[in-house]
Amino acid sequence: MTIQSALKALERLLGDRLLTSDAVCAQHGENETYYPNTPPDAVIFPENTEEVSQIVKLCNLHACPIVAYGAGTSLEAQHLPVQGGVTLDFANMNKVLEVRDEDLTAVVQPGLTREELNTYLRDTGLFFSVDPGANASMGGMAATRASGTTAVRYGTMSDNVLALEAVMADGTIVRTGTGARKSASGYDLTHLLIGSEGTLGIITELTVKLHGQPEAISAATCRFDSIEDAVNTVILTIQSGIPMARIELLDDVMVRGFNTYSKSDFPEKPHLFVEFHGSTAAVAEQAESFGDIAAEFSAEAFSWTTKTEERTALWAMRHKAHYASWSLNPGKKFLATDVCVPISKLAEAVVEAKEDSLRLGLTSTIVGHVGDGNFHCGVGIDPEDADELARVEEFTDNLCKLALRLGGTVTGEHGIGVGKIKFMEAEHGSAVGFMQAIKAALDPNSILNPGKIFPATNAQR
Amino acid sequence: MTIQSALKALERLLGDRLLTSDAVCAQHGENETYYPNTPPDAVIFPENTEEVSQIVKLCNLHACPIVAYGAGTSLEAQHLPVQGGVTLDFANMNKVLEVRDEDLTAVVQPGLTREELNTYLRDTGLFFSVDPGANASMGGMAATRASGTTAVRYGTMSDNVLALEAVMADGTIVRTGTGARKSASGYDLTHLLIGSEGTLGIITELTVKLHGQPEAISAATCRFDSIEDAVNTVILTIQSGIPMARIELLDDVMVRGFNTYSKSDFPEKPHLFVEFHGSTAAVAEQAESFGDIAAEFSAEAFSWTTKTEERTALWAMRHKAHYASWSLNPGKKFLATDVCVPISKLAEAVVEAKEDSLRLGLTSTIVGHVGDGNFHCGVGIDPEDADELARVEEFTDNLCKLALRLGGTVTGEHGIGVGKIKFMEAEHGSAVGFMQAIKAALDPNSILNPGKIFPATNAQR
Repeated sequence: MTIQSALKALERLLGDRLLTSDAVCAQHGENETYYPNTPPDAVIFPENTEEVSQIVKLCNLHACPIVAYGAGTSLEAQHLPVQGGVTLDFANMNKVLEVRDEDLTAVVQPGLTREELNTYLRDTGLFFSVDPGANASMGGMAATRASGTTAVRYGTMSDNVLALEAVMADGTIVRTGTGARKSASGYDLTHLLIGSEGTLGIITELTVKLHGQPEAISAATCRFDSIEDAVNTVILTIQSGIPMARIELLDDVMVRGFNTYSKSDFPEKPHLFVEFHGSTAAVAEQAESFGDIAAEFSAEAFSWTTKTEERTALWAMRHKAHYASWSLNPGKKFLATDVCVPISKLAEAVVEAKEDSLRLGLTSTIVGHVGDGNFHCGVGIDPEDADELARVEEFTDNLCKLALRLGGTVTGEHGIGVGKIKFMEAEHGSAVGFMQAIKAALDPNSILNPGKIFPATNAQR
Repeated sequence: MTIQSALKALERLLGDRLLTSDAVCAQHGENETYYPNTPPDAVIFPENTEEVSQIVKLCNLHACPIVAYGAGTSLEAQHLPVQGGVTLDFANMNKVLEVRDEDLTAVVQPGLTREELNTYLRDTGLFFSVDPGANASMGGMAATRASGTTAVRYGTMSDNVLALEAVMADGTIVRTGTGARKSASGYDLTHLLIGSEGTLGIITELTVKLHGQPEAISAATCRFDSIEDAVNTVILTIQSGIPMARIELLDDVMVRGFNTYSKSDFPEKPHLFVEFHGSTAAVAEQAESFGDIAAEFSAEAFSWTTKTEERTALWAMRHKAHYASWSLNPGKKFLATDVCVPISKLAEAVVEAKEDSLRLGLTSTIVGHVGDGNFHCGVGIDPEDADELARVEEFTDNLCKLALRLGGTVTGEHGIGVGKIKFMEAEHGSAVGFMQAIKAALDPNSILNPGKIFPATNAQR
């Protein structure tokens, strides 16, 4: 019972569809952060759920690790086969199976990307809201409990997945949830699978919520002298019940990154980018109410627009935050980390993080989904530079401890993966044991993405 | 290891705070439906989490069933100790521990009722949104994944609980979730406990989301010639992105119940009751847009108001649906059941349910949270009348099968309890085995509310 014996069995099942070339394996070992290339022993592009079930059954029989792969955009190494084994690349399971416009739902395969789904929906008047920066796959977004800029209004993957089909560790195909918008029937396996990072089951189909495209959209920007003023503007806007569709905080370093990467010329001060969705009258009212609140906190250069091209340019720039941050660290690899705190603690958290990066001599951008209390720090890394690596590790460790001290979580949307395993105990305390009991009950041979969320227990090689 | 040996150990711990009188036990065996009185062997009113932990540890040692009790308003017998044992009544753990107004959250104990919480919040400008008919306890609402009239706008308990403290079967105290509004850290034990009906852990503290009281509220009513017209009005309103805070469908029989019980004089036709929350301008715009859509489906007698007294009267009447339905069945017990279907199938479901009740000679009201596709049927029962009991059972069985056939769930908000165990397999298929594996992993001695969600496996007496 080894990876090698599993590969032989899989080859009997799949013939030359079991791919083992160095090129394809190396490609699936790549990542957008600073992890070394971590190739699997083989790659399979499954065609359908039944085939996934057969593959998982064989892997279970041989105790062979199996990792689901979507778009490869995860930021905590979730898609890297750290114990080897087989990568299932869902590129061929990327269909929109059904759009139910009266129910505002769509049924999709896990390899579909969010942009592909929205392109498909373009003429329906509907859209899928969850919007992390990357053009991630739907399966990967569910597995990591992703969110993004619109979560403050439309929710995260946790809020937008109604039902799942998944293959469990023994190959059983399960369906969780229904086509109804809510249920009080039995344990909530849908939410248990969402955010389980492929360690409890492999998602093979998703039923997701859609939203009606708003009649009108307004976007606004303004800048502040301090992070506190920016955050207090957000808090008061939320308390006033003004429904923001997006609200992003950029610190001075992030603004410098945008100016460098996107050739913009914003003054290097904390900025808020905000968006409102609704009727034409409502979005005008909301933008102006927001402007009034921002003025109370001495905002400068408040401006708002409903012009599509101006809005698009703004959010296109925002979506390049990852690369804009990276551009401040030429020639280096890049670490993008995230934490999430109660919004009342956000200013304190951001200011302390900035001070810590200065103290450690790092160039960290800060950009955040500030309506959720969620923010990202982006720092360059030269993995060959042991001293820098140690300072970056000290920075991210301090950031996680800070988030926990302020009553928050070590990750709002990137997940645990490999990088944050060491904080599971600090965040969850005695609950970790119950999580591991669930893992052991559902995946007794630990074949599903081993070495993620929890430390690896039984290295297969 | 029996209930009796557990009681002896508990008496050593608690002295005369272990209550075993027939009166207190019978009181905790009561229910608002047609189940026979089902008393526990003893009742304890715990004072704090540490005490709950000690009690559960002893019960686990003696394999003694333990049932959490909030307000006793569950509709599927969730609070009834069907295998005897100990009832933990949380009446003394009913405090608001903290209101964090900047974060729009509150930390509460499980015995607090939702009305008590909202009374406490009255002067803060905030409110707790989840609103089932009954004045249920917060712990009970979480445990049954309750929702109610406002779920269409503000979500269910699944959406409004950020974090929990719970005592697990071995007495371990766990904390799930954090004070942050979202997290991608580890398995989602919060959602696993929500809706687990006390079978996986006993909730001892909740952190819940609050919402800002809207600047203005408008309420509207109208009536239709057919259920289809009413439902199509709702579908088009949702698709138009008009944010309804509440939208309730009442069938002709339910209207008759209200006329009887609340002395109203609505024509006995399908009605919609709807409410909008927002700015003064927005709620006027929304009510009128809704009126335009309703007119397309031949609505009669459309009227709307922002007057508090008129709105309050309307919703006070709606909240008496349980008793108004019961009033059509004088001298009988009462069964209130619920299912939830994709909204596109709602008209079909309601019409078929009505036809089935007529065929079976039953007087069933139908009232529903129609924005979610969730509706309730209320029928009188004389438990002494075997023929009627059989007809009621046929009716509810057909209703559940209908919901499943239309892609929905056998319960949108009442839960499984005892009454719907027989449909777990039909709804969840192979997923039931994984739910049971989780139950076995977390509660190996099956002491937590045994006989709920799944059939009883090891009767303790």
